Amino acid sequence: MLNVPPESEADPVATVKPSQLMLSKEVPAEVGHLDSIQDKDVEEQKPDVLNMKSGLCYDPRMRFHATLDEVEDHPEDPRRILQVFEAIKEAGYVSAIPTARDAFIRIPSREATLEEILRVHSKDVYDMVKSSETMSREELVNLEKTNDSLYFNNQTFFCARLASGSAVETCNAVVNGKVKNAFAIIRPPGHHSEPNKSGGFCLFNNVAITARSMMARYPEQVKRVLILDWDVHHGNGTQMAFYDDPNVLYISLHRYENGRFYPGTTYGSAENCGEGEGLGKTVNIPWPCAGMSDGDYIYAFQKVVMPIGYEFNPDLVIISAGFDAAAGDPLGQCYLTPAAYAHMTQMLLGLAEGKLFVSMEGGYSLSSISTAGLAVAQTLLGIPPAKLHTVYATAPAVKTVEEVTRIQSRYWKCMRPIFHTPPTDYTHVNPLHEVVRAFQAKKLFDNWQMTILPISRDGLSESYANQALCSNGFFHRKTLVLFVHDPPDVLGSSQGNSNLLNLSQSAVVDYAETYIDWCLQQDFGLIDINVPELLTDADGRPYSSTEETKLLCLYIWDNYIELSSAEKIIFIGEGRAVPGLIHLVSSRNVSTRVKSVITFVGTDALCGIKTISNEDVPSWYYKHSLVLVSNGNVCWKKMKRKKKRYGRLVRTEHDHKGELMQQHYESIVQYMEKILRQ
Amino acid sequence: MLNVPPESEADPVATVKPSQLMLSKEVPAEVGHLDSIQDKDVEEQKPDVLNMKSGLCYDPRMRFHATLDEVEDHPEDPRRILQVFEAIKEAGYVSAIPTARDAFIRIPSREATLEEILRVHSKDVYDMVKSSETMSREELVNLEKTNDSLYFNNQTFFCARLASGSAVETCNAVVNGKVKNAFAIIRPPGHHSEPNKSGGFCLFNNVAITARSMMARYPEQVKRVLILDWDVHHGNGTQMAFYDDPNVLYISLHRYENGRFYPGTTYGSAENCGEGEGLGKTVNIPWPCAGMSDGDYIYAFQKVVMPIGYEFNPDLVIISAGFDAAAGDPLGQCYLTPAAYAHMTQMLLGLAEGKLFVSMEGGYSLSSISTAGLAVAQTLLGIPPAKLHTVYATAPAVKTVEEVTRIQSRYWKCMRPIFHTPPTDYTHVNPLHEVVRAFQAKKLFDNWQMTILPISRDGLSESYANQALCSNGFFHRKTLVLFVHDPPDVLGSSQGNSNLLNLSQSAVVDYAETYIDWCLQQDFGLIDINVPELLTDADGRPYSSTEETKLLCLYIWDNYIELSSAEKIIFIGEGRAVPGLIHLVSSRNVSTRVKSVITFVGTDALCGIKTISNEDVPSWYYKHSLVLVSNGNVCWKKMKRKKKRYGRLVRTEHDHKGELMQQHYESIVQYMEKILRQ
Repeated sequence: MLNVPPESEADPVATVKPSQLMLSKEVPAEVGHLDSIQDKDVEEQKPDVLNMKSGLCYDPRMRFHATLDEVEDHPEDPRRILQVFEAIKEAGYVSAIPTARDAFIRIPSREATLEEILRVHSKDVYDMVKSSETMSREELVNLEKTNDSLYFNNQTFFCARLASGSAVETCNAVVNGKVKNAFAIIRPPGHHSEPNKSGGFCLFNNVAITARSMMARYPEQVKRVLILDWDVHHGNGTQMAFYDDPNVLYISLHRYENGRFYPGTTYGSAENCGEGEGLGKTVNIPWPCAGMSDGDYIYAFQKVVMPIGYEFNPDLVIISAGFDAAAGDPLGQCYLTPAAYAHMTQMLLGLAEGKLFVSMEGGYSLSSISTAGLAVAQTLLGIPPAKLHTVYATAPAVKTVEEVTRIQSRYWKCMRPIFHTPPTDYTHVNPLHEVVRAFQAKKLFDNWQMTILPISRDGLSESYANQALCSNGFFHRKTLVLFVHDPPDVLGSSQGNSNLLNLSQSAVVDYAETYIDWCLQQDFGLIDINVPELLTDADGRPYSSTEETKLLCLYIWDNYIELSSAEKIIFIGEGRAVPGLIHLVSSRNVSTRVKSVITFVGTDALCGIKTISNEDVPSWYYKHSLVLVSNGNVCWKKMKRKKKRYGRLVRTEHDHKGELMQQHYESIVQYMEKILRQ
Repeated sequence: MLNVPPESEADPVATVKPSQLMLSKEVPAEVGHLDSIQDKDVEEQKPDVLNMKSGLCYDPRMRFHATLDEVEDHPEDPRRILQVFEAIKEAGYVSAIPTARDAFIRIPSREATLEEILRVHSKDVYDMVKSSETMSREELVNLEKTNDSLYFNNQTFFCARLASGSAVETCNAVVNGKVKNAFAIIRPPGHHSEPNKSGGFCLFNNVAITARSMMARYPEQVKRVLILDWDVHHGNGTQMAFYDDPNVLYISLHRYENGRFYPGTTYGSAENCGEGEGLGKTVNIPWPCAGMSDGDYIYAFQKVVMPIGYEFNPDLVIISAGFDAAAGDPLGQCYLTPAAYAHMTQMLLGLAEGKLFVSMEGGYSLSSISTAGLAVAQTLLGIPPAKLHTVYATAPAVKTVEEVTRIQSRYWKCMRPIFHTPPTDYTHVNPLHEVVRAFQAKKLFDNWQMTILPISRDGLSESYANQALCSNGFFHRKTLVLFVHDPPDVLGSSQGNSNLLNLSQSAVVDYAETYIDWCLQQDFGLIDINVPELLTDADGRPYSSTEETKLLCLYIWDNYIELSSAEKIIFIGEGRAVPGLIHLVSSRNVSTRVKSVITFVGTDALCGIKTISNEDVPSWYYKHSLVLVSNGNVCWKKMKRKKKRYGRLVRTEHDHKGELMQQHYESIVQYMEKILRQ
């Protein structure tokens, strides 16, 4: 029931009268919904949270684990934790010897127990790490060789247990309310360590052990845990530990590069979403390249991490906080500023009533991890995040987030619209470009009796079936137009919660049609070719469309145009067919009969006559061409002096090729009329 | 330049060796980007922010402004500010007499100056309010009558100036760093007060005056201000004050209801985005109904408010904090819990380096505003938000946010894909359903010589031209199938940053086609009708498709089927045509020749034989029907005993009608074969 007492009870005088403000008189149908608001929804939070401090764990003994290599330092350097701790100390938030005035309460370190470690790892992994405790130098070197990206000394086992146990203890202080949130500055890191296999600088999986331990110790309070892994590498170990667990949501942002980046498998792909009951509870955000920056991470947080985080509604949030996506990291090669780490932390503080535990993972620039770690610490303390370095996401980030959103739309309402893909086991699936071309063909047949022009050449894509049309008797016309263009624009409008289109709200906008109509009104011969976006061979394999359109244009010339009665020929090109037309001009002697080559280039790259061709060709082309280029085309910046071989360039105000064709229709037609009168 | 010193300088030993971790050897092309990271991006924040308190302004004298009506209280009740202040006091964050131990620093109130008020309002507005200071009771009542939703007494002018001045003073304390953020518990509210017209309980626009004053006083520090208005009413006054200002972003979430909700105009529609240089700097999120709750507001924040907020990158955030969307508010009729107010505040604290000023507006339940106001106060103090009441957005919210996103995609990168609409001044625009139907017709002609069945009846929509096809010689077949269905699924895939579809990645999936092929393989007669989503008459006006399909089915029966030689007839229906088929069964004597009526209903509402029809019809229909219903159809919950008039229901596991048709193809065909053998 509702905690809010009726107005009359709270205040006997305040009976609210209907007001002028209330223009809408209807009581909403959903008013019963109010009953579902429980006491807990409106009760005030306990004020003592105000005086709770943040927790911090640091134990210099974790530096004992070090490489035996005396020549070169290893990136997972013992000084990493010291540097982060020193930065926080220098900022005045902790003292070397803890005092009551410190902003952070110090959480004592401890070693993880066997029981805790076995919550995640096999006994074999435990025994393997333990075995290093008493090994000789030679044995340690051998152990290093049999493992992936690990080094050992006799303190490794102790340090690994100390890191895991300290993580458990620090998180425990958050869950039991001793501190409001906490930061464990620990090493060796953990997130690459799989249940049955350590690796990637990681011995025991600190974060996984911590999550499992909290769920075991507080079964009522901690039912759902979100682990957010912003280390620049994929946390394969953590993902594996919870892959079928519906109660642990693992979200990772990492460089992926089609599985080429460490750990070098496809396990961190966006398609890996968990299995069994855990399906949908793994969310990978795999960057396709290095160089990601503030705007990209914030974009992913806003579009994916936080919506899914809110929908999952965790009781505890753990950050697997590698700082190797920070600007300056030698391995990560990304550009996150400390502000980005602060903002990500700040956003996550909105979940789980602020119960947030930050556990350090990778990060290999000693200075970068210090500033990034300090920013996280400040945010935990309640200091507002600084402004970001950039607020815009880059194209690769937008594309990645879009892919993740599509995939996760199967599992999360907040990720909708649901993205359906055509069923693979069903025959009646037609690519939309075929459907659109069939419509065009039907219309051109109905209006102008245009028919299909056969194209039968080995090596030319099957995709061209139905894509070339010709007007009735084109072969005998004195004037012939070859028009090669992209398919029309199709503007989609979906039904809201999926990518099933609303057909009445979606439209095909065919800018080529006005030109076709004009040619046929003049009784010219017309060959109209539509170049599909994706060309495929008979087996459905993709083709290079540029090479293909070159072959196609030559084929049309050799088999039809050259043999026709046409005395005056005009080429019109738009979109991906333009290189094919230019190649034809370069390769055949077209100059006696072709009167003009008109191309709509828009923002695409300019396409020039091949320099090895007859030297008269570029001059001829320049005189007989009209190249419509958008104002925003980079060529205006790049090229100071425009070479003749690119043709006569006309700068227009429109970026979109369709608009360009539409807006310049009158002047192009006048130009063609003039050319043909000569 | 980068503040991070080279590793060698920071620490002479730490030369990082290439590691096994670094599988990808290429240095990214964008590496130069690093140069753009400035000192300020990596420098640590000043630690004294940690010890900064939050500010709070409250002056009981603002209660002097009150209605003269002695019979009824007015919703904008003087006790509103007292209640909010008391709630915060009772929670222990302020004392009646300020002390150094208070969590909030008290900001002294003051009256706004003429200069400050004239930054937003005309002198006429100022003089009108001032005039009330010395009026008689009768004059005050008259003044009330000449204004929209305002009341006056002799203290009104003083209180209005006190509210505006206190807002300015409180916000000033945030900007000049005296406090980290602040809350002004003030009345009368301000956001309905337009530059030239007060109204809606609002005299002077406190928030607008504050924003303008801060920008005037701190031209370097405060260049861009975000005003977030979560009052349940649209802040027409604030929107108008900054409509052409590129530096003040006004975002409002409000009940709109097509302009019927107060203030009762369309000025708060999603289409109103600012003008001139301010275009794109007004973002309205207009709810279509009452009853919005936590999940809806958080959804709007995640999808629109925060992405645009981050992209705008303000120097100061002001919340126009009405609490009339809170559960229990008599005017707002929405269901926000205090937690939702806390979360919205928490998110906004991520902007502008935490420089957030909360200014009270409406809110008319004395208890609801207390709990909501307390939640905001706690969040300002750094107390983490409680869990939300609901984390799911409702359908009206999703639809509204989608509309806003489409509109704002013109102005904000984060709102992309850009949503193009077909050009209105261009003739070659074809609705996709016509394109798809032309393709189907072509395919059915090519494969089966099916042709168009003429439909010429006054009152039947023009949309049916080309939508009815018939097999060659259907009129003379002994077995005839009438198949009425929706258009095929079109799965759209866009090009990433706009709704221009990628045609190769988009597909038409035609689940009806297998049934059509089967019928024609059996050499049955077939009438195939496609029912478009949106029927239009000759002038393009929309029609009711349910009524239309009823007319259509009767027309087909009367003009074709009844006159045909068919002895055995099967009706198959799918989607929006089903009511038409059932109407036909109810209205004509079909029982002697029709052997079965098969309908694919999926999750749609069941459709029954009209009860007024011949009483034999429901029994006949029950015996001769097969109705395929999804497992998730609400009928399974609602109806205990299924009535015969709904036909023989078959519960299937598929929700999507297409899948249902595909998966049950074999068994439906076997059923039809059996029926026809009898």
